[in-house]
Amino acid sequence: MRRIAVVLIAVAALAGAVAYMPSASGQADGEADPVFGIKIPAGYRDWRLITVAHEEGSLNDLRAILGNDVAINAFREEKLPYPDGTIIARLAWNYEPLKESEKAFGRLQSFVAGPPKNGVQFMVKDSKKYASTGGWGFAQFDDGKPASEAMQKTCFPCHEIVKARDFVFSRYAP
Amino acid sequence: MRRIAVVLIAVAALAGAVAYMPSASGQADGEADPVFGIKIPAGYRDWRLITVAHEEGSLNDLRAILGNDVAINAFREEKLPYPDGTIIARLAWNYEPLKESEKAFGRLQSFVAGPPKNGVQFMVKDSKKYASTGGWGFAQFDDGKPASEAMQKTCFPCHEIVKARDFVFSRYAP
Repeated sequence: MRRIAVVLIAVAALAGAVAYMPSASGQADGEADPVFGIKIPAGYRDWRLITVAHEEGSLNDLRAILGNDVAINAFREEKLPYPDGTIIARLAWNYEPLKESEKAFGRLQSFVAGPPKNGVQFMVKDSKKYASTGGWGFAQFDDGKPASEAMQKTCFPCHEIVKARDFVFSRYAP
Repeated sequence: MRRIAVVLIAVAALAGAVAYMPSASGQADGEADPVFGIKIPAGYRDWRLITVAHEEGSLNDLRAILGNDVAINAFREEKLPYPDGTIIARLAWNYEPLKESEKAFGRLQSFVAGPPKNGVQFMVKDSKKYASTGGWGFAQFDDGKPASEAMQKTCFPCHEIVKARDFVFSRYAP
């Protein structure tokens, strides 16, 4: 009787724990990018905010950088290099004026996120698997499908500019 | 023996569940704003992203709108009015050029979040408590302290512009 009780207690505790696991640790889904073999991580839209940015020029977007738990902890601890398992997501939306801001401020001065654009991008840290590109895999997905191989190969040469920050442009916005 | 086992199982399951409760449901802390009695909600920096924006003019910031779970669900379901318990947070940082973007893009075109500025603002839905201001309480905190009473009173008159969207300017950025 006692042994059964002990086993049942353990099972119940585990069930209680598992029932509340954050969904962000789910499996990746869909087609993998052709260069680094990355799939869209499940639940990335629910990840926490690292920072925000605006791109002028042809990109013309407002963007948010989100990170999984490993990423957020690394950014907050400010320890380089980022640990294996870090995943950073870049989401972007069209840069649009908010017409109500004219009434609110007396001049049209607010710019907000319109429809999504410029795909979604990910950086995935795996220092062994991606050793030849600074330990990072890079992927872009447009409407859920991997961008072209040519496109995926443009990521690292650009990120090499910030090699001293472990190839990451973003800084944590507190 | 059996009764003890049942109780222990229940306690273990509860402990397992509680151990993984998201911390965002913590209590508010610090000094309350003088108009609506709102305190800074604990863990708001860990809330999920609703959208991003850029303010020109004297504000000159990049901003992120975060929401607690009630808020995120309401934005995603696109059901108005927002339910009681909705809390929306507006964070903001200085609008600064990213000098590396000149190397990356051939022209300086990226603007990123610098130090925090313009305080942090909250909208809290409680249709009974805040009935005279559309069901919303508004608060701004600068360096953790409530902004002036005069400042807090400027919020609602401006948000009345978007009464048709239950007084919320933000739209969910997917």
